[in-house]
Amino acid sequence: MQKGYDIFQETKTLAFPTWEYGQAKGTLFKVEVEDTPKFGQDAYIELDSARTAFLSIDMQTDFAGKGGYVDTMGYDLSLTSVAIEPIKNVLDAIRGTDISVIHTREGHEPDLSDAPYNKVLRSKLIGEGIGLGESLEDTGSQLLTRGQKNWDIVDELYPIPGEVVIDKAGKGAFTTSNLHLVLRNLGITHIVVAGITTDVCVHTIMREANDFGFWCILLKDATGATDYGNYEAAVKSVKMQGGVFGNVTDSKRFIKAVKEAGLK
Amino acid sequence: MQKGYDIFQETKTLAFPTWEYGQAKGTLFKVEVEDTPKFGQDAYIELDSARTAFLSIDMQTDFAGKGGYVDTMGYDLSLTSVAIEPIKNVLDAIRGTDISVIHTREGHEPDLSDAPYNKVLRSKLIGEGIGLGESLEDTGSQLLTRGQKNWDIVDELYPIPGEVVIDKAGKGAFTTSNLHLVLRNLGITHIVVAGITTDVCVHTIMREANDFGFWCILLKDATGATDYGNYEAAVKSVKMQGGVFGNVTDSKRFIKAVKEAGLK
Amino acid sequence: MQKGYDIFQETKTLAFPTWEYGQAKGTLFKVEVEDTPKFGQDAYIELDSARTAFLSIDMQTDFAGKGGYVDTMGYDLSLTSVAIEPIKNVLDAIRGTDISVIHTREGHEPDLSDAPYNKVLRSKLIGEGIGLGESLEDTGSQLLTRGQKNWDIVDELYPIPGEVVIDKAGKGAFTTSNLHLVLRNLGITHIVVAGITTDVCVHTIMREANDFGFWCILLKDATGATDYGNYEAAVKSVKMQGGVFGNVTDSKRFIKAVKEAGLK
Amino acid sequence: MQKGYDIFQETKTLAFPTWEYGQAKGTLFKVEVEDTPKFGQDAYIELDSARTAFLSIDMQTDFAGKGGYVDTMGYDLSLTSVAIEPIKNVLDAIRGTDISVIHTREGHEPDLSDAPYNKVLRSKLIGEGIGLGESLEDTGSQLLTRGQKNWDIVDELYPIPGEVVIDKAGKGAFTTSNLHLVLRNLGITHIVVAGITTDVCVHTIMREANDFGFWCILLKDATGATDYGNYEAAVKSVKMQGGVFGNVTDSKRFIKAVKEAGLK
Repeated sequence: MQKGYDIFQETKTLAFPTWEYGQAKGTLFKVEVEDTPKFGQDAYIELDSARTAFLSIDMQTDFAGKGGYVDTMGYDLSLTSVAIEPIKNVLDAIRGTDISVIHTREGHEPDLSDAPYNKVLRSKLIGEGIGLGESLEDTGSQLLTRGQKNWDIVDELYPIPGEVVIDKAGKGAFTTSNLHLVLRNLGITHIVVAGITTDVCVHTIMREANDFGFWCILLKDATGATDYGNYEAAVKSVKMQGGVFGNVTDSKRFIKAVKEAGLK
Repeated sequence: MQKGYDIFQETKTLAFPTWEYGQAKGTLFKVEVEDTPKFGQDAYIELDSARTAFLSIDMQTDFAGKGGYVDTMGYDLSLTSVAIEPIKNVLDAIRGTDISVIHTREGHEPDLSDAPYNKVLRSKLIGEGIGLGESLEDTGSQLLTRGQKNWDIVDELYPIPGEVVIDKAGKGAFTTSNLHLVLRNLGITHIVVAGITTDVCVHTIMREANDFGFWCILLKDATGATDYGNYEAAVKSVKMQGGVFGNVTDSKRFIKAVKEAGLK
Repeated sequence: MQKGYDIFQETKTLAFPTWEYGQAKGTLFKVEVEDTPKFGQDAYIELDSARTAFLSIDMQTDFAGKGGYVDTMGYDLSLTSVAIEPIKNVLDAIRGTDISVIHTREGHEPDLSDAPYNKVLRSKLIGEGIGLGESLEDTGSQLLTRGQKNWDIVDELYPIPGEVVIDKAGKGAFTTSNLHLVLRNLGITHIVVAGITTDVCVHTIMREANDFGFWCILLKDATGATDYGNYEAAVKSVKMQGGVFGNVTDSKRFIKAVKEAGLK
Repeated sequence: MQKGYDIFQETKTLAFPTWEYGQAKGTLFKVEVEDTPKFGQDAYIELDSARTAFLSIDMQTDFAGKGGYVDTMGYDLSLTSVAIEPIKNVLDAIRGTDISVIHTREGHEPDLSDAPYNKVLRSKLIGEGIGLGESLEDTGSQLLTRGQKNWDIVDELYPIPGEVVIDKAGKGAFTTSNLHLVLRNLGITHIVVAGITTDVCVHTIMREANDFGFWCILLKDATGATDYGNYEAAVKSVKMQGGVFGNVTDSKRFIKAVKEAGLK
């Protein structure tokens, strides 16, 4: 610990702690991150590519496309679909490297057996009678229901073979899916986080991961919320108290780091 | 579900669903809550007193008092200590009723075996060398360490016999403590939430509870954050999407409901 | 607690504790169970039909049929398929009542992302080179792989609409599936357990459920193990220490109780 | 995977998979284990000392000493206290090495808030009126209650500084304690298991750990159950299906391996 602190003071780098995790399995590379408290400037975090996962959260039509859940609730789709292009750029940069790619999808079984009563009721209230598992009149799509077109990941970011897809029944993922098993099997220590929505699913998953000791790095331009003020606060909140939920950077700096390290 | 929706349309009340949970064990009572989306006004939530827990989160000197963790990090203590008086008022109103009272404390074993490496390192960065488990020069107190005076609950809100105290090792509580067991043993369906800090521990616990189907009701004046904008966004975020993390009210309205129901 | 103890002393019945869970939602009925320690004879457990789930564990071809996983490992199939008929009888008795029916299936994603390394390796050792996710030469079936015919539930016990199917990635189910969510949504307090194999998946799930306070009742003739001695010890172990993992009865006594209660 | 299988075929060794976990942090060493199915003889498992934990389960007076819980229930104490000497020998061999030592204690808060209703009731049935949390007439000790003398670890095996002690509220430990956090913080991949009782807490914890991918190695002479047949079946069950819950060896072979590796 003291070692990590000493290194930071000299190099402004949250070094990959080989004394904790062992020697790198892949390539060590550094990413610039924002607002290191009490150090007045940007800093760096060091990752082991083979122990890093890029986590693309809930980039489903239900949250970012026409005729989906967020659209039905009446929110401005541009606030969430803004994340598509930056995530596409990240995928382009890391596919083919030893960074793992994991996609999540929120959704429920058609019988709603895994959906709490109050979640379903609230969805009916916001949907003015059409809630989880029910069909939209015009499209026939069932909202947030596994197997439906609107529930699946948007075309631009569709998973390719070798990428993991996690189906989760909650806003978080560690207690309502097998994400914890996958991360363990892959030996992940650092999670680069993107997706939607920032203040709901993205933040919930970061909080869970953080409590288990994963290093989370949020790409602030590769995420969006249904309310812009909530988005801004969610990003700021990560950085409070010395990085209470991890670190923040953006897709450009992450991609730059990946390329400079020659991962691809 | 349709039943709950029909009742809401008629009465603006999220009724206690006896068809889901069974007949009331205690007294059913209604609390006014804010901003029911698409219904343009305040609404009500109905609770069964014997299935309700009041959860006072991390009201420790470390987060709300002098010489504690938040104080050491340099934040304005008035932003968190603001929650003390409203919580005291709630405790005065519900002690002696069949509403359960649960207090949480964040903290780690003195050997830090339950503290992730990055949590300890970040605390050293924000503390300029003095982090979790280490002693402050002037007081000798070890920050966020179980058994220390600064780690315990502030005098004003100290638990009395019959109240449960939960020690948790994370910002959340469902995967780093036995809160889940206690809630199950008590048969809780609704959780009235207060404490600090709003955007960190309070929100993390609400998110976890919400994913498991608990009804969470945040008392917005009985909570505080180290940044006021983050506090405001955290409160707003709860109410998005039809109440994505529950409902929001304040201590006065909750106490009024308790008293009118004759729980005490 | 004292109340439950006093009732037991008078009636030899583990009464459904309405003072804990609330009034019955369905019909209260009593099932005879074996070997109540220190009381020298059989006793009874009282259940609320609407808070009871019948859990049929892993009745998949992989564990009970030709060309499945257990068959490939060389074990005697009659030791596991023995559970089929009793479970069928139970399903016949409870379908149409308010007792919930839940089936589990063990299996992994085709990419094995949710399968620990050592589980896959051991399956290759026992399978002499053919392990989890790999195809048998003669049938082309991939062992314990979601979507494969051998992975699905045997025809005799195939789920009907209204029954929940849980896919789990482990021997247990509470940390590798959403069973915990389903039980919570259904408001279950008592679980009647059957399926295979007794000493592995059945016992693991009972242990997990038991730690959370669910009342587990094992139907000893509706379960089987790959080794008969292990089966016998698994049944006995449940009854140690006053019922350390729950109670034991058989399908006939359970069906008798269901019928006498007029649940159907 | 294929690599691990090929190595096993050549060397009868479950090699430490550096291609999964990275290079050894400590010293690689091999322990002989029993009954490798379909290979007709003993085999070996390779461990990284710095990623290995020795887990001593519930060696408390309540389970192995006079006036404790097991004694009160009327079981033969010699069946559980038999584990003390072998565990002492293991501790003597590994203290001072980089193998982590973790002790668990089962117990409940004095208010029993973390004890399920049926666990408490059953303890009253087996204890003929004196159950969890209640005081024995002659000693005044409260059974399985945190803070009581009988709840603590027996003198012979008392933890020394640097060893972790985990308090758990269940038979298992992964959902009722922070063991999962500690194992993660320590970077553990292999767990050498001992303690009591074999068929209850020891097996439950092994099953949980196994589902998460930990390699479990049971020291069969350093464990005991309240029934000898259950003990034997529990040991056998671990070895079924290619090692369904891990591997089995004994304290002598483990200590021999530790010494030959020069860990001490």
